[in-house]
Amino acid sequence: MTSPIADTIKIIAFDIFGTVVDWHGTIAREVDAMNLGVDGNAFALAWRAGYVPAMQRVMSGELGWTRIDDLHRMILDDILARFGITSLSEAQKKDLNRIWHRLDAWPDSVEGLTRLKSRYTICTLSNGNIGLLTNMAKRAGLPWDCILSAEVFRKYKPDPATYLGVANVFDVAPEQVMLAAAHHDDLAGARSCGLQTAYIERPLEFGPSQPKDVSPQPGNTLHAKNIVHLADMLGC
Amino acid sequence: MTSPIADTIKIIAFDIFGTVVDWHGTIAREVDAMNLGVDGNAFALAWRAGYVPAMQRVMSGELGWTRIDDLHRMILDDILARFGITSLSEAQKKDLNRIWHRLDAWPDSVEGLTRLKSRYTICTLSNGNIGLLTNMAKRAGLPWDCILSAEVFRKYKPDPATYLGVANVFDVAPEQVMLAAAHHDDLAGARSCGLQTAYIERPLEFGPSQPKDVSPQPGNTLHAKNIVHLADMLGC
Repeated sequence: MTSPIADTIKIIAFDIFGTVVDWHGTIAREVDAMNLGVDGNAFALAWRAGYVPAMQRVMSGELGWTRIDDLHRMILDDILARFGITSLSEAQKKDLNRIWHRLDAWPDSVEGLTRLKSRYTICTLSNGNIGLLTNMAKRAGLPWDCILSAEVFRKYKPDPATYLGVANVFDVAPEQVMLAAAHHDDLAGARSCGLQTAYIERPLEFGPSQPKDVSPQPGNTLHAKNIVHLADMLGC
Repeated sequence: MTSPIADTIKIIAFDIFGTVVDWHGTIAREVDAMNLGVDGNAFALAWRAGYVPAMQRVMSGELGWTRIDDLHRMILDDILARFGITSLSEAQKKDLNRIWHRLDAWPDSVEGLTRLKSRYTICTLSNGNIGLLTNMAKRAGLPWDCILSAEVFRKYKPDPATYLGVANVFDVAPEQVMLAAAHHDDLAGARSCGLQTAYIERPLEFGPSQPKDVSPQPGNTLHAKNIVHLADMLGC
């Protein structure tokens, strides 16, 4: 049954890392294939674990505005040392850092987004930088109408400037925008700005050895198994 | 024959109004169809003539950052008065102002862009705001990889921050970016920042009663009859 909210919303903004693409699986597979003598799963988790603290250094003002590409590189240099990897050339490190530009989409993402695009304007709302998101979309075939990023607003989520920025860019009311994300803190930030929210279950975001609790939590407008299911709920 | 520049460039950024879409024809036709008792051709030309002076008020600091949607509305209110049109409701004025979101593409634009997209990252680089460019692309089927706008850089073309901003966003050298535009002043701005330039002939940009001189001028990397011809020259 189509949700009654389907007629209210005009814009659906998507979180990316974990919601639309599988950062853990892509990184673990590629690192394992590099035969560096480290566990790809642990390496992927360590890299991602550095993400929020790195952004907090920007948000606190300790660092000036810094793109995710550069934050990813700072974290990479740190974990390469921690994992005792000293064999990579500068070119190899640069290429490995670009893995975030070539993350694989979850199997339902392209079909779900394509269906949603037929009725709504669909855009990214990610802390990833514009170039990263564009390269990712081109490789994975993600059919965005528009790529929005923290880089446009010069603030990282969950800063209200990002959620309200989407409504402002498209000249609509906050309640006409829905954020779709696999993370409750991101959705809570959007909700506090008056946006609609859709939780997307991604039980394997952290890999099969660390299944995530994806049970419904109160407050979200919709709760979807994946993006195809979200399209079903919105009558697309 | 494919241009030798084809292997150098990675990104092609397009000017929009006049280069990819036909502002004059779309506005003249729609205004004529409204039966307001004014000449659609003259109305379209007057509206567009207010564009550069309005942006200059922003660039000089007289106005704070103002989106093109709002500048278009200021100019519209002025020319409605000048043309003696007093019959439009506020809703009708709002809708008329949104005509810039629904401009028709030139007949070659979708095919040419689709071919270029197979080899390059293609993006907008317009003074139009992000929402306007997104709505236009969705309606006209323009297959951008990414929508870049003065709104991202908070500077209007020909400010160097816009041209260099494209190279910066995609982390490439300026000479790996090509600006395609139907306007020599825009191309000159890009060239002075080190970008490649492609002039696109649009002899009817100002309508059939005001044909434009589209003869080649020195300094541009390429000179194309239209966007399909540009794709031919770049081997796409």
